[in-house]
Amino acid sequence: MKQFLRQQLQNYDQVRAIKWSFEDGLYLLDQRYLPHKEDWVCCNSAKMAADAITDMVVRGAPAIGVTAGWGCVLSLQEYVNHSQWKDLIAKDFDYIEASRPTAINLHWAIGKMRLLLNAADSAQQLLQQVSQQAQAIADEDIDANYAMAELGLEYVRAHGGGNILTHCNTGSLATGGLGTALGVIRACFADGQTEQVFADETRPWLQGARLTAWELAKDQIPVKLIAEGAAGYLMQLGKVKWIMVGADRITADGDVANKVGTYNLAVLAKHHGIKMMVVAPSSTFDLSIESGDQIPVEFRDQSELLQFSGQQVAPQASEKLGGWNPVFDVTPANLIDCIVTERGVIENPNKQAVRSVLGIA
Amino acid sequence: MKQFLRQQLQNYDQVRAIKWSFEDGLYLLDQRYLPHKEDWVCCNSAKMAADAITDMVVRGAPAIGVTAGWGCVLSLQEYVNHSQWKDLIAKDFDYIEASRPTAINLHWAIGKMRLLLNAADSAQQLLQQVSQQAQAIADEDIDANYAMAELGLEYVRAHGGGNILTHCNTGSLATGGLGTALGVIRACFADGQTEQVFADETRPWLQGARLTAWELAKDQIPVKLIAEGAAGYLMQLGKVKWIMVGADRITADGDVANKVGTYNLAVLAKHHGIKMMVVAPSSTFDLSIESGDQIPVEFRDQSELLQFSGQQVAPQASEKLGGWNPVFDVTPANLIDCIVTERGVIENPNKQAVRSVLGIA
Repeated sequence: MKQFLRQQLQNYDQVRAIKWSFEDGLYLLDQRYLPHKEDWVCCNSAKMAADAITDMVVRGAPAIGVTAGWGCVLSLQEYVNHSQWKDLIAKDFDYIEASRPTAINLHWAIGKMRLLLNAADSAQQLLQQVSQQAQAIADEDIDANYAMAELGLEYVRAHGGGNILTHCNTGSLATGGLGTALGVIRACFADGQTEQVFADETRPWLQGARLTAWELAKDQIPVKLIAEGAAGYLMQLGKVKWIMVGADRITADGDVANKVGTYNLAVLAKHHGIKMMVVAPSSTFDLSIESGDQIPVEFRDQSELLQFSGQQVAPQASEKLGGWNPVFDVTPANLIDCIVTERGVIENPNKQAVRSVLGIA
Repeated sequence: MKQFLRQQLQNYDQVRAIKWSFEDGLYLLDQRYLPHKEDWVCCNSAKMAADAITDMVVRGAPAIGVTAGWGCVLSLQEYVNHSQWKDLIAKDFDYIEASRPTAINLHWAIGKMRLLLNAADSAQQLLQQVSQQAQAIADEDIDANYAMAELGLEYVRAHGGGNILTHCNTGSLATGGLGTALGVIRACFADGQTEQVFADETRPWLQGARLTAWELAKDQIPVKLIAEGAAGYLMQLGKVKWIMVGADRITADGDVANKVGTYNLAVLAKHHGIKMMVVAPSSTFDLSIESGDQIPVEFRDQSELLQFSGQQVAPQASEKLGGWNPVFDVTPANLIDCIVTERGVIENPNKQAVRSVLGIA
């Protein structure tokens, strides 16, 4: 990354939410209680790390990948001297992989670890290999974030700057580093391309209100929260020129699964001639599936809609009254202007453009 | 209305939220505390009625019109024997009219009362006239609701039934009677056209979660709440065939101001080939303005986004962090398939179609 940009970004890169210690274990900034409390959870077993993913102590596709990597190290540490180490560790890897269904980075990280496990003869040696791999996943994520920020900023410069609407949280809380879409947003602000960020509050979990606003406030970047219902009106009034979002899984054809509400924004952006940018590292691609309808979309409990902070907001659930709560949706490639990866920008994504930029023959 | 339909609807018409008593005053079911508490507020002055509108004890364009009518009666009751009655009453009318900016029914109701006031010689006689007018507004609203339910159902039958997504609350809590869009929805369910209603929770005030779900639960009509971000995915999966919403103001060209989020749904509906139906009585039309950009859109305090039930959810507001909180948006006529009024259905609304159905030469 160009030294100049990295220097500019220093002031806009204040947050880290995942910390590893070989002695204590995996420290995670508990995202369920932000912005009210900055509590750290210390996971010292693979199961704890997996449950932290399921319970959304940590969320965001790249951050889940990094957490899964360290979770594997915790498993190794627990069973390195156990006679049944191979089976026990394999079970832990399965348990981590099942922690959430949609983000592919989880499977990508566990896949790397499973290759090591299958080839291993010695638990001691595997501990070392898995530790190195976990560190590499974390380091590569930080580097990928900077690279995407640079490439995304270049793309914005080339197409004219402007204010940005973002969705969910794609920052340091969702990754190991600067963020994906929020990394590009930080770079755009540092570079003077963008004066004002708008953030969808992002129901039902309010990642925008609780996390994105908190990160941008730390960086002193101006942010205005909106209800998701206000996104169309915001675009109609010409107040944003860019939509920037992350991704949880991208198919071979360039279809994107991301936090529910992303697809609404893509349709609205197309209607208004506003640029739709997806920012995600190459680890987010799942080239084993062609199109978005093959992505498993997680549905979470209806209580996330019927209650708020444990307080009932809707009438009690009954046979006739409930919630329909998909937490991701699928945006087809034809509604996306570009996907920014650390390997390059995929413009007008389709199968060929994806393979070309990812460097697949 | 056909006797058969009215009979079918009996079981789906359980709620009334505005009650008038010449002795006590105006009783309003306090919508701020639903569905947890069914509290009634009794207003015994015009100012109390106006403040109840501003504070959203009562909301929904037709209900605001009915409340404004009774508010005028309260003013007459207070000043009927006062020497300065004409000035004092005129001031009350102004105060009521300023209670909220977007819903035209408010201006429409006060306009009728002001005509009576301007022509009045005797306060006693005016009290009688204003009381009759307020009763007429309330009665006509109930009749208009039934007529719209019938016309809307006919339109749905002609175009094929199916499940419905609705937004905000357009039921008995938003009107004096059965509801506008929710009246049509009740008729569609009673008639077997619709098996399942989906309701946007409708941020930031959660009218869908708190009010629409409560009304439909009372009527035993199956309802599933969704986050607004899930609307596009719901349509992509083919789970709804109709969008039905109310309106706060409709221009001469057929542009519609309604609860923020309506415009998103209209763009999404067009993208998916789903029918977009607006249901609103003729009193919702403002023929003095041509197009939607002339409608004054109310912005409410950013605390509605930054807090929830008085509890902070986002970081504290600051110079750089805030909320952008329009509570209405404007849907252009070309995204609307039909506007159902008590006088008939305006298909593919434009200036001529509006004038023709409203019976304006």
